[in-house]
Amino acid sequence: MPITQLHPELIFSSFAPMSQKPTIPRGTRDFGPKEMARRKFIFACINKVFEKYGYQPLETPTMENLSVLTGKYGDEGDQLLFKVLNSGDFLAKTSVKDYQEGYKALRSKISEKGLRYDLTVPFARYVAMNRHDVTFPFKRYQIQPVWRADRPQKGRYREFYQCDADVVGTDSLICEAEIVLMIREAFAGLGIEDYTIKVNHRKVLDGMAALVGAEGKEGALYVAIDKLDKIGLEMVLEELKAVGFDEDSLILLRPLLAVEGANREKIALFRSKFAGNKGEKGLEDLETVFALLHHLGSDDQNVSFDVTLARGLSYYTGTIFEVVVNNVKIGSVSGGGRYDDLTGVFGLPGISGVGFSFGVDRIYDVMNELDLFPPETVVSSQVLITHFDEKSRNYGLGILNLLRKSEIKAEIYPDLVKMKKQFAYADKKQIPF
Amino acid sequence: MPITQLHPELIFSSFAPMSQKPTIPRGTRDFGPKEMARRKFIFACINKVFEKYGYQPLETPTMENLSVLTGKYGDEGDQLLFKVLNSGDFLAKTSVKDYQEGYKALRSKISEKGLRYDLTVPFARYVAMNRHDVTFPFKRYQIQPVWRADRPQKGRYREFYQCDADVVGTDSLICEAEIVLMIREAFAGLGIEDYTIKVNHRKVLDGMAALVGAEGKEGALYVAIDKLDKIGLEMVLEELKAVGFDEDSLILLRPLLAVEGANREKIALFRSKFAGNKGEKGLEDLETVFALLHHLGSDDQNVSFDVTLARGLSYYTGTIFEVVVNNVKIGSVSGGGRYDDLTGVFGLPGISGVGFSFGVDRIYDVMNELDLFPPETVVSSQVLITHFDEKSRNYGLGILNLLRKSEIKAEIYPDLVKMKKQFAYADKKQIPF
Repeated sequence: MPITQLHPELIFSSFAPMSQKPTIPRGTRDFGPKEMARRKFIFACINKVFEKYGYQPLETPTMENLSVLTGKYGDEGDQLLFKVLNSGDFLAKTSVKDYQEGYKALRSKISEKGLRYDLTVPFARYVAMNRHDVTFPFKRYQIQPVWRADRPQKGRYREFYQCDADVVGTDSLICEAEIVLMIREAFAGLGIEDYTIKVNHRKVLDGMAALVGAEGKEGALYVAIDKLDKIGLEMVLEELKAVGFDEDSLILLRPLLAVEGANREKIALFRSKFAGNKGEKGLEDLETVFALLHHLGSDDQNVSFDVTLARGLSYYTGTIFEVVVNNVKIGSVSGGGRYDDLTGVFGLPGISGVGFSFGVDRIYDVMNELDLFPPETVVSSQVLITHFDEKSRNYGLGILNLLRKSEIKAEIYPDLVKMKKQFAYADKKQIPF
Repeated sequence: MPITQLHPELIFSSFAPMSQKPTIPRGTRDFGPKEMARRKFIFACINKVFEKYGYQPLETPTMENLSVLTGKYGDEGDQLLFKVLNSGDFLAKTSVKDYQEGYKALRSKISEKGLRYDLTVPFARYVAMNRHDVTFPFKRYQIQPVWRADRPQKGRYREFYQCDADVVGTDSLICEAEIVLMIREAFAGLGIEDYTIKVNHRKVLDGMAALVGAEGKEGALYVAIDKLDKIGLEMVLEELKAVGFDEDSLILLRPLLAVEGANREKIALFRSKFAGNKGEKGLEDLETVFALLHHLGSDDQNVSFDVTLARGLSYYTGTIFEVVVNNVKIGSVSGGGRYDDLTGVFGLPGISGVGFSFGVDRIYDVMNELDLFPPETVVSSQVLITHFDEKSRNYGLGILNLLRKSEIKAEIYPDLVKMKKQFAYADKKQIPF
């Protein structure tokens, strides 16, 4: 009989009656009804915001060719890609010599596909492949799981969802301003109130590096200042000294890192230092974003210009975003930025854009910690029909039909059992009526 | 810098500027905005029906341990499992001897995980692992992709979605009656009108086999009669003769296969033949399902007792379902049935249940062919704000804010370009205002 692609084709008969204690792979999770209801609540909220702002959905395959994935995430990323074994006799085109050369040599001959590592490379691949059909500016959102062979630990999983929105084919800063609005609207929907949207700009970072004479050692500078929140200004300066920054640089740097106050004041201070420096363009962009927020009927409340923000640096070329929930120690829950050349590596140069992502797993943890899930966040029936005997059950079936006709989620206890058991079922499933 | 699990950590700088023509793996697909809107329409419709009938959502990991997957789908199924290469130096615990023994021997040492092949085995694994937390009867639905290393062809993909609903821990035939209602309600929501829900029962098949003396060769019998629709009665009887069925058997079989008329009449005919035969229990179950449909305010319209239906036979033990859309040559779009022992293999015996599945890819094709997607099935903005210059654009930003405050999906063309280009964008994205 042909294998259909529908419900069970299990063949238990061909299968010796043994019993095994099943497990799931490390770093992966099942989501039961309760978690699913909460996750669906988060996804629906984010999804709604994306669409309200004109972003359209995209889904790409779980498996991508390794030629597409490899080399895009650095050496460490390549190591963390899950690779899929070729089907059938994958050794057919190999020799003992390949085996003896070690796992990397053999791997390249027995595995052609890998699991999606993020949503950005598949998106770039999609845009490059469909360049003639895509309408630019292209605003797409994508909500799908990704996989990384990381060491599992608290809050770090081997399978987790990303929720990305990117707009490519425009360098309008309206996109940046709208990202601020989308983050606010999503968090308002989720009930998260006390958070900070940190913004910075690649050119401000580069301008600062130029100012303090850190050309050629920008990396060390950004790594050190990234720790400001955790270890404080003095320790950061110590660290920079240790990696070879001289006294003069540090004297120049200190007031820049110590800057406080409103965004306007911070920008003014940097402006006074950046005269003629390449950092000026970055400050100008940030000011434009704030001005556009104003045109959009909003302000820079919740938004903080933070010169220490440097995420994914080699990639971003313009504005950089990161969102932290205040007073919750869990890291950033959203982040993104502008990039210059998304698809060049796939043969389509000059496509710039800006994108950001919500970290659903962390948002879930934050909402749990702050007890923000509405009590009604449960996918369950509104009504359970109970019964004493077959006659009352059959009568109940008629009622059930009427309830469902009125679009009320309802079910009947299917078996003829004691009332106590039926009520226990309603309790556990949190069915109110 | 630590790798975050958020938006891009691409490291293009470490990456030589080469250009490659990207491809996606055979048998996989991208779903762009148009397809996504249509698929979301189908998923939302099915999702709503599942929840209305008291089913709760579940998601399981993409990767399962091969110890969980292997041996559940027959030898062919095992071949079609996508296997994931162990991370790091996967050859560390192997020897040249393993290599020389061939790919199967080596594979068992270098791969421990595989991609989900269906939703039923992961569901069984979940129930067995969470037996103490699950409330029985457990009604769960699950909408996730599955992967099979099948040869790709029209309508057969290597990655495709399944939409399963199962209730386990009860043998009440109310579940069967409700499956009929759920199928009807889903199809009504999708706009599919002309379809047939074929039902049969494993015990009716076994009873028929016993009646015609086919014990020990049931498989050959079911394979042959399964073709009745395609090749006709005479050819089926020819084929059975060829595989060793004698004249007497075929004489007994002919009226059973030729039976026509209302379900009631068909059941009456079988009843008259099945006196004292094990098929009687099957007929009784089917009659009960029809009676329960009546109590549920419905009838057996669209439902056809079809004795040739035999899908997934070694697995199902009770009622069997399959849905075909009439006058569309695409195979079944939904199917399922009752099974006796879902989780025995995972150490939890005696859990029976009934489940069914919607074939989203085929439903998509059917709806395309019958032109059933509502024209408004497009995820796009309702309003695009266009502008002549920076001043009108800034004014437009204020309007945009008001529209979105009223929950209207809206966007502004981000760049200062000619009106013609802005209108072309609205056209392509099907934005009406």
